[in-house]
Amino acid sequence: MNSFGRIFRVSLFGESHGPSLGIILDGCPPGIPLTEEDFTADLRRRKSGSRGTTPRIEDDLPILSSGIYRGHTTGAPLMLLFHNQNTRSEDYSRFIDTPRPGHADLTGHQKFHGFNDPRGGGHFSGRITLSLVAAGVVAKKILHPVSIHTRLLEVGGESEWTEILEKTIENKDSLGGLAECRISGLPAGWGEPFFDSVESYLSHIIFAIPAIKGIEFGAGFSATRMKGSQHNDPILDAEGKTATQHAGGINGGISNGNEILFRVAIKPTSSIGLPQQTYNFRTGKVETLAVEGRHDACIALRIPPVIEAATAIALADLKLIRQSTTKTTHS
Amino acid sequence: MNSFGRIFRVSLFGESHGPSLGIILDGCPPGIPLTEEDFTADLRRRKSGSRGTTPRIEDDLPILSSGIYRGHTTGAPLMLLFHNQNTRSEDYSRFIDTPRPGHADLTGHQKFHGFNDPRGGGHFSGRITLSLVAAGVVAKKILHPVSIHTRLLEVGGESEWTEILEKTIENKDSLGGLAECRISGLPAGWGEPFFDSVESYLSHIIFAIPAIKGIEFGAGFSATRMKGSQHNDPILDAEGKTATQHAGGINGGISNGNEILFRVAIKPTSSIGLPQQTYNFRTGKVETLAVEGRHDACIALRIPPVIEAATAIALADLKLIRQSTTKTTHS
Amino acid sequence: MNSFGRIFRVSLFGESHGPSLGIILDGCPPGIPLTEEDFTADLRRRKSGSRGTTPRIEDDLPILSSGIYRGHTTGAPLMLLFHNQNTRSEDYSRFIDTPRPGHADLTGHQKFHGFNDPRGGGHFSGRITLSLVAAGVVAKKILHPVSIHTRLLEVGGESEWTEILEKTIENKDSLGGLAECRISGLPAGWGEPFFDSVESYLSHIIFAIPAIKGIEFGAGFSATRMKGSQHNDPILDAEGKTATQHAGGINGGISNGNEILFRVAIKPTSSIGLPQQTYNFRTGKVETLAVEGRHDACIALRIPPVIEAATAIALADLKLIRQSTTKTTHS
Amino acid sequence: MNSFGRIFRVSLFGESHGPSLGIILDGCPPGIPLTEEDFTADLRRRKSGSRGTTPRIEDDLPILSSGIYRGHTTGAPLMLLFHNQNTRSEDYSRFIDTPRPGHADLTGHQKFHGFNDPRGGGHFSGRITLSLVAAGVVAKKILHPVSIHTRLLEVGGESEWTEILEKTIENKDSLGGLAECRISGLPAGWGEPFFDSVESYLSHIIFAIPAIKGIEFGAGFSATRMKGSQHNDPILDAEGKTATQHAGGINGGISNGNEILFRVAIKPTSSIGLPQQTYNFRTGKVETLAVEGRHDACIALRIPPVIEAATAIALADLKLIRQSTTKTTHS
Repeated sequence: MNSFGRIFRVSLFGESHGPSLGIILDGCPPGIPLTEEDFTADLRRRKSGSRGTTPRIEDDLPILSSGIYRGHTTGAPLMLLFHNQNTRSEDYSRFIDTPRPGHADLTGHQKFHGFNDPRGGGHFSGRITLSLVAAGVVAKKILHPVSIHTRLLEVGGESEWTEILEKTIENKDSLGGLAECRISGLPAGWGEPFFDSVESYLSHIIFAIPAIKGIEFGAGFSATRMKGSQHNDPILDAEGKTATQHAGGINGGISNGNEILFRVAIKPTSSIGLPQQTYNFRTGKVETLAVEGRHDACIALRIPPVIEAATAIALADLKLIRQSTTKTTHS
Repeated sequence: MNSFGRIFRVSLFGESHGPSLGIILDGCPPGIPLTEEDFTADLRRRKSGSRGTTPRIEDDLPILSSGIYRGHTTGAPLMLLFHNQNTRSEDYSRFIDTPRPGHADLTGHQKFHGFNDPRGGGHFSGRITLSLVAAGVVAKKILHPVSIHTRLLEVGGESEWTEILEKTIENKDSLGGLAECRISGLPAGWGEPFFDSVESYLSHIIFAIPAIKGIEFGAGFSATRMKGSQHNDPILDAEGKTATQHAGGINGGISNGNEILFRVAIKPTSSIGLPQQTYNFRTGKVETLAVEGRHDACIALRIPPVIEAATAIALADLKLIRQSTTKTTHS
Repeated sequence: MNSFGRIFRVSLFGESHGPSLGIILDGCPPGIPLTEEDFTADLRRRKSGSRGTTPRIEDDLPILSSGIYRGHTTGAPLMLLFHNQNTRSEDYSRFIDTPRPGHADLTGHQKFHGFNDPRGGGHFSGRITLSLVAAGVVAKKILHPVSIHTRLLEVGGESEWTEILEKTIENKDSLGGLAECRISGLPAGWGEPFFDSVESYLSHIIFAIPAIKGIEFGAGFSATRMKGSQHNDPILDAEGKTATQHAGGINGGISNGNEILFRVAIKPTSSIGLPQQTYNFRTGKVETLAVEGRHDACIALRIPPVIEAATAIALADLKLIRQSTTKTTHS
Repeated sequence: MNSFGRIFRVSLFGESHGPSLGIILDGCPPGIPLTEEDFTADLRRRKSGSRGTTPRIEDDLPILSSGIYRGHTTGAPLMLLFHNQNTRSEDYSRFIDTPRPGHADLTGHQKFHGFNDPRGGGHFSGRITLSLVAAGVVAKKILHPVSIHTRLLEVGGESEWTEILEKTIENKDSLGGLAECRISGLPAGWGEPFFDSVESYLSHIIFAIPAIKGIEFGAGFSATRMKGSQHNDPILDAEGKTATQHAGGINGGISNGNEILFRVAIKPTSSIGLPQQTYNFRTGKVETLAVEGRHDACIALRIPPVIEAATAIALADLKLIRQSTTKTTHS
């Protein structure tokens, strides 16, 4: 549903065109220094504006509405609130009758019996990821000194994508992308078998991000073509350092102290300017739909900080869970 | 941790060489007919014995220990119990000093401060999946008439794998594989955004299965090289039937009524007969380890029924969650 | 922690003197008509102003920040937001050194290592119950046509309390009270043994309300002095109607279709004008503390709508859980 | 449902007359020494045999089925298994038509649509508490050096109960009782506001025990008749020691470092030999029911170790949760 985590638990709310959106962070340890400025860097990375992203520009400054006192977290729930502005709701009303292919227009309608908010994708909007990125800023502080770096490897299958991006924008079409996330400094012993393996926890939250359709850890899908003698990572020292990283830093669902590595498949943006076929629920016929309006030609360009934040949220929870059972001593 | 699900909640326990293993199924609706024979087919599919699988043979018949009365589920927790037999624990003691590459020998030791049961992989053993398969039999009954079919597409990168399998067994090496799961008959509207998308829920439980290193839905990683105009699935009728299946039957994290499709990457079995390098914690040196004993040259051969069961468990829970909020009427 | 419920899940945040407080309602079924006016009656009942309650007056109108569209719930999280005004924070700063007896000044400090917000009790303030009452309004709609009625039976041990209240206010002291909650129209079959009995679920949330120190169902503590032949409620018809109500409408943790009845013990308000002894952490001595400022001489006067709301929240979740497992049919 | 706890999570299963019953303990820290003998003392305290308890005698020795290796917990789920013997199922079949007043015969039938196991109360049997007591033994080890003591204060309203007990047995009637639980050595800072106050957590699990109908902390219901100046506990030193214990060791839902105290109301055993009125679902008439068979004239005599175990389970979880957020340091 709309919360994630066992100890460090985030609960989000909001729609693209409603009055506000935000996220509650429960289980946040007290005493973490936090100011509004801490959010600037990651929110800017997520922001639209560069070539291939939507021209909808907002000054997204989080309001620290609770759980903070004299510049530090208090231990009470932290609420990060954003107000929506610059919404143009008139663009979206007709998608109730003619659902856009690739979007949640139809499934949202089916799931919520027609009561869902269709404006700007409502609760399914990519704008919701703004809250994730903000929560990730706090999660990264909990994880300190663990560091997480996500970057785009390919757009439209190309590692040099300027040309294909320009051409695709010109054609009113869209592109997908491939991202890579590397986590360094993570100690061995995180992850909670059987069901809450590191891969399980990370994939759960990563697949919550709109447009993600695949994830692989370490060698991933290429491991299906390797021999065991190639894939197994030789262990080199008492810290568990391995010669290769085919396991992506995870054995038996538990971090092994090496760098954690995974890759994420991002589908092409569903919103395109080209005409598409869809069913018209009013006329009962398949029709051609042409969608105007602001959107990203390549949402993958904006997703790396979202992946990073989601990763941080899941790992912060695994860290706190790990702490819960390692401190007890018995005589 | 060792339970999964919100309403239909499974909780497992057991080790490879302990007295018993099993799984509790809570939240199971009452009145489902169930006998021990219902488990025969799926447990046999998972069983070892064919070429490329371990010669450890056990008669794995589940004991229905609770939650059943006069051949039907009662609504109380269902306990499916298996006793371990035919264990050869002497094989495993030395892996505490010289952890096997690719296994959880080292991470299990690190996580549990040396108190983990090392015999046969202990709680990390693939034998634990026996309980999953048994639970899946019940989950499939809850899901009726939804049907789930999993099959192996490739072993070692080959769709015709007899030859490569024989050669690899001869070389005392191992192979990975690629599996595909198709779910038909699933209604639109399942899945709980934001965090419990269908992809999130399925990937969470699939990555709990040992040896899984990747998952992709619909077009998956190939979607990263597609244009939006290619990837978007045109909608054809009032039931939401689509012309193509690039989304894998899921939009916005919610089932769209079409077939659900995902593929899973299975790494090569970690246990190999070939010598490998590992660190010896007693001598403090990197040494060559040669592992004898019974194991699967290709664990992928036995994983399809496990994937199918895990899928059924996750979907059964999504079905019950779905039912919880759709029944209420308001005047 | 700060969320409650399995399907209908509420997550609250906020402090007495922070910028805002509120509550997210997840799992709320779509299509429930809801306007700001719906909150007026219950919020007014909770409001201060009558004799024996704090003179802090606020216009508490909830902002429906998400999860609502065209006057109906959408199925996405509903966010009910309140802004704080009329705060007088200067009153509270010294309670860090000299914690007030009966309050959470000291335990909040200990738990959160001194980082808690002390202003107005911070996250421990009774003001937090404003969010509960607002969430209760929605929960009651989910429960329709079940009705819940809470009333005060006694104040300071008296069923006619005008006199004792006046005298206690005059003495700058405070009073406790005894409340009764009756739930009618609840069908048989709600409650989830073993651990989520109706009593377990209700007591869990009722004890979250500040100042509650006891709860009893049906005959409750007086049952300890009854014989089984007196206490057992004779069953009279096919609907399970009973001749007496000693079980409080619950057998084996499950509602039996009769009226549910419980009573709640509310301690006297901790804030009193009379001098009290406490430890001064700065001087290291036990000192006399005199507390000025606005507070309720009898918080019990304002608690009935809070008990009612908490009850509604817990029951709404039990209703949705009940629905999740009763709909499945098996051929 | 049938599991309790966030980190230290217990999941139980089983019926009175099924093949076995037991409990899984997940999240148990590794390295705790544990043998079957550790269970002897508490299980003997719960055992029947003394005057006023059922003559059903069983040798209840737990089988440690998983999660233990070389005499210590491993960190994997601990499974405590009991086999049922000495069952006399013929006694119970007719209670489907004529449900016993006070029992869950009718509510169990209603909840589970007639599929529940009626033999010996099935999953509603007091025998299920055997698993709780066993789990409590492990929980107490996690809590070390916290100590919990539960004792019976009254039976049938008398603090000297030999006479009333004899007379009630003679009359084929039954008695209730009042128990008190004291917890010493518990540090300040446990409990997780808002919803998981110490009182919330304890009452949740205590009300899961069959026959419990009330709970009060500290002064409890008598606090409703006290003034604030009487009820507030003066703070005496830097450890938070208080002069009185009216709050029962809990302020704002958080332990304050003093002894924790609560009392529990236990209703008279529902099973009595005297004739009672109930509805006959077959004949459609109210009839007189006389119940023979083995049962406890006063179940309260056997409940103190169950209360103690339930308390230990809830507190062990609160301890592990507490540890999860107190270890993180931030520079």
